[in-house]
Amino acid sequence: MGGPAVAAKLHSYLAGDWYEAPDEGRPLLDAATGAEVARLSQRPVDAAAALRHAREVGGPALRELTFHQRAGLLKSLGKHLAAHTDEFHALSTRTGATRRDSVLDVDGGIAVLFVYGGKGTKELPDGHVLPDGDMEPIGKQGTFAVRHVHVPRQGAAVQINAFNFPVWGMLEKLAPALLAGLPSVVKPAGQTAYLTELVFRRIIESGILPEGAVQLICAPPDGILDALTGQDVLSVTGSAATARTLRSHPAVAGRAVRFNAEADSLNCAVLGPDAGPGTPEFDLFTQTLVTEMTVKAGQKCTAIRRALVPAGLIDAVQEAVCAELADLCVGNPADPTVTMGPLAGLGQREEVLRALKALTAAARLVHGDPDRFEVLDGDRERGAFLPPLLLRCDDPDRAEPHEVEAFGPVSTLLPYDGTAAHAIALAARGEGSLVGSVVTHDPGFARETVLGAAPWHGRLLLLDRTDAGESTGHGSPLPHTVHGGPGRAGGGEELGGIRSVLHHMQRTAVQGPPAILSTLTGPDPATTAEPQGEE
Amino acid sequence: MGGPAVAAKLHSYLAGDWYEAPDEGRPLLDAATGAEVARLSQRPVDAAAALRHAREVGGPALRELTFHQRAGLLKSLGKHLAAHTDEFHALSTRTGATRRDSVLDVDGGIAVLFVYGGKGTKELPDGHVLPDGDMEPIGKQGTFAVRHVHVPRQGAAVQINAFNFPVWGMLEKLAPALLAGLPSVVKPAGQTAYLTELVFRRIIESGILPEGAVQLICAPPDGILDALTGQDVLSVTGSAATARTLRSHPAVAGRAVRFNAEADSLNCAVLGPDAGPGTPEFDLFTQTLVTEMTVKAGQKCTAIRRALVPAGLIDAVQEAVCAELADLCVGNPADPTVTMGPLAGLGQREEVLRALKALTAAARLVHGDPDRFEVLDGDRERGAFLPPLLLRCDDPDRAEPHEVEAFGPVSTLLPYDGTAAHAIALAARGEGSLVGSVVTHDPGFARETVLGAAPWHGRLLLLDRTDAGESTGHGSPLPHTVHGGPGRAGGGEELGGIRSVLHHMQRTAVQGPPAILSTLTGPDPATTAEPQGEE
Repeated sequence: MGGPAVAAKLHSYLAGDWYEAPDEGRPLLDAATGAEVARLSQRPVDAAAALRHAREVGGPALRELTFHQRAGLLKSLGKHLAAHTDEFHALSTRTGATRRDSVLDVDGGIAVLFVYGGKGTKELPDGHVLPDGDMEPIGKQGTFAVRHVHVPRQGAAVQINAFNFPVWGMLEKLAPALLAGLPSVVKPAGQTAYLTELVFRRIIESGILPEGAVQLICAPPDGILDALTGQDVLSVTGSAATARTLRSHPAVAGRAVRFNAEADSLNCAVLGPDAGPGTPEFDLFTQTLVTEMTVKAGQKCTAIRRALVPAGLIDAVQEAVCAELADLCVGNPADPTVTMGPLAGLGQREEVLRALKALTAAARLVHGDPDRFEVLDGDRERGAFLPPLLLRCDDPDRAEPHEVEAFGPVSTLLPYDGTAAHAIALAARGEGSLVGSVVTHDPGFARETVLGAAPWHGRLLLLDRTDAGESTGHGSPLPHTVHGGPGRAGGGEELGGIRSVLHHMQRTAVQGPPAILSTLTGPDPATTAEPQGEE
Repeated sequence: MGGPAVAAKLHSYLAGDWYEAPDEGRPLLDAATGAEVARLSQRPVDAAAALRHAREVGGPALRELTFHQRAGLLKSLGKHLAAHTDEFHALSTRTGATRRDSVLDVDGGIAVLFVYGGKGTKELPDGHVLPDGDMEPIGKQGTFAVRHVHVPRQGAAVQINAFNFPVWGMLEKLAPALLAGLPSVVKPAGQTAYLTELVFRRIIESGILPEGAVQLICAPPDGILDALTGQDVLSVTGSAATARTLRSHPAVAGRAVRFNAEADSLNCAVLGPDAGPGTPEFDLFTQTLVTEMTVKAGQKCTAIRRALVPAGLIDAVQEAVCAELADLCVGNPADPTVTMGPLAGLGQREEVLRALKALTAAARLVHGDPDRFEVLDGDRERGAFLPPLLLRCDDPDRAEPHEVEAFGPVSTLLPYDGTAAHAIALAARGEGSLVGSVVTHDPGFARETVLGAAPWHGRLLLLDRTDAGESTGHGSPLPHTVHGGPGRAGGGEELGGIRSVLHHMQRTAVQGPPAILSTLTGPDPATTAEPQGEE
């Protein structure tokens, strides 16, 4: 094992203690070499007890703090974790991540803490209650009014994370929950849980967060759904099938547990008809497509699965993309010359190959062969390698490219007739996406396509020569922008600055005398007869 | 049949035509006399075709209009319906509604149209796209920014209504959907569908709304859920069991259909320890409780089921409430001396009696006897009459009063120790409520109780001598205030002014060059190359 020291058996952190399960656990394997990295218990823990601890210890401790104090915790935590990035990067390599991939996951995750720390201080009051809109008088005498406020829910946030972003996935959910005053119970995906556990250890060791504010379940979380109530929030990132199962669980549906899903979707990028070869936008489009195919070996729920290209430009785009893909080096990310690592595991590779087979009923491979490709410094059999695979489907009305997701380095070129209307119609065939890009220097085409495609998207990126230098790219959700999308993308919303903080709170309309309503969002007034309470 | 003329067989309005089902249908009976009022088809209609019509005809027509134009439609519709209130009131009597009850349902429903018309004009832009927050620069050069916008979803709003507010229930859902640009398919509850159908006829006859903007299903809506997509919104008012079933439906859960539920809940009212006999607040509390028990014969999802009273005041409250209840006159609401009408039907009465039996395991009846009471001018056997039934449970830790809802003129007195903490803890035992009231003239107790109870409530009313004159009361959701609540109350949110309009739209983060982002929410700029599109 070439990686850094790591606990052979992953621990859970429950009710204030690290817990080691009695079973041997199943081995978690290095994505490139197949060597064992850690073991994950198969024995369920008492998840209901974790929820009780969150509600009885973590929640009250967090709610004692003001928004600004909680924002301060996030900043401190960001600084603390930033001092350990080398360690995180080293272990991240074992997940199949190149240096570039790890920056997205590790540094990107820590950046979320800083952004939420900053926004909490700048955009929220230094109090416990957040006003929602202005006080609104009802009636003409001025004796009766309504004020909407947000208060912390008195439950827990249960966070079911995906395997592809073991650090960012945890931190992007923790930050808004903590800022809202809601304690979290984190359940990482098995495949890469060792990296989540390492970062979580550093969080606990820091002593920055009050006890009970965060817990970690490295084990099957059996029974956790049954123990949820209407004060809890259940957030899941993963497949549409997982989201459906969790959403329909009797306790979740029956008690109206607040539910948020972020599911993989068939995101598209649209090349404008103005952006032929020789324009900066043509190059931006092909570079973006190559980046999205290869970062994290395409294992991003935001990756471009459908590249919509004016029919007259599709040959040129294909040629340019294939040329760029040919320069890539697939292999063990421990080698710095490698530009695309393996998938997270052999199971993931099998799934991608199954999806590829379904796609090739409608599309033909124009770059890459899963049976023949070079691998640098990895175990070809035990490592989960694939080459980048570019497909082309000349009939954009075929169902497969809009419905079958290959969660790997796979994308399909599709022609459209060059009108915004056709691009919008094809984008909508994905039935709901996390993100789409429109690459054009024509402001009319940009505006029309964005507004037309917006109902099916949580985020849209307009890319041209003027913003490319500062653009954060198609695939990267920012803490500032909502992340989630309608329909197939899960129907949820994460991040978006304070927007996702509100998803962890309860909005309540309070009607009454204006003089009392005006005290709700401020500090407890000295006139209060019984000064216990929120403070 | 003493009521006004009404179609013997209720019609559906589908795809631009009134449709009469071929079957005889089941009889819908006058709540007080048991006489037949109308017949409701038992034969499913082609609900999927209604959805297609909404998406293909109604949606595009509504999206052509600006927010201000849609707001204008709501105002026109309000005026048109207001000219027909006498007719609506007359038919409303057949549902068991007294004059006071009908004012809430009919006039209250029309008022929602006017408020949304006004708010749409005052609070929304005269355009098609609603900005969400300010443009936010990303990066230091000023070339890249993010702007969040709300755009209309390109689906339909399916509205499953409850039997107790056949007019308000339809209009409070229609108004925000129409303002958002989303066409509606209305499914009234069978028991009182004849009143919904009459109002709907007047809407269609007015010709105010574009074709496809609204449709009505007076029949089993079989298959409508299977036809939903991620662009649709499903809103339901009804029992928790109905909400759970709809939420878990494979198409709803699997396609992340946006779902909103407003379910009956065990709402409470808290009397402050300062508010003993002789204070205005004591009288306000007892009057409020009597009102909430008797309006609509207690068939309101917002009615007070749990009256939390300081232990030392419970005898006095019981005495005062019983005295007021004794003055009530139960009977046929066609008689103007009647102050409380029957339940909507015999089935509802049976359910209330079942719940009453469960409650009396923990509480004793201190007013009213379901087997012995006077009925004025109604059919005692065929009319669904009950007297107001006041219970008292001296052990507030018993589960039944917090869990068993009798959806009729039933409320339970429960003692608490006079502290805000105990009142909050008992309020929370309802596990999520639509509304709660705190009746006190002590601002400290008011503030502490409201902030403590807020996580479990969608709305809270502070009532004292200063705001009672203008207060709109415990049981009435205003168009201005959110209506819905966490947990048992369904976890949804309706009304709340523009807040519920947003629930019918898609929020999308658009990243790109600031110059283009700034054109998204304004009119189509003249520079647009292809001027079709949103306008």
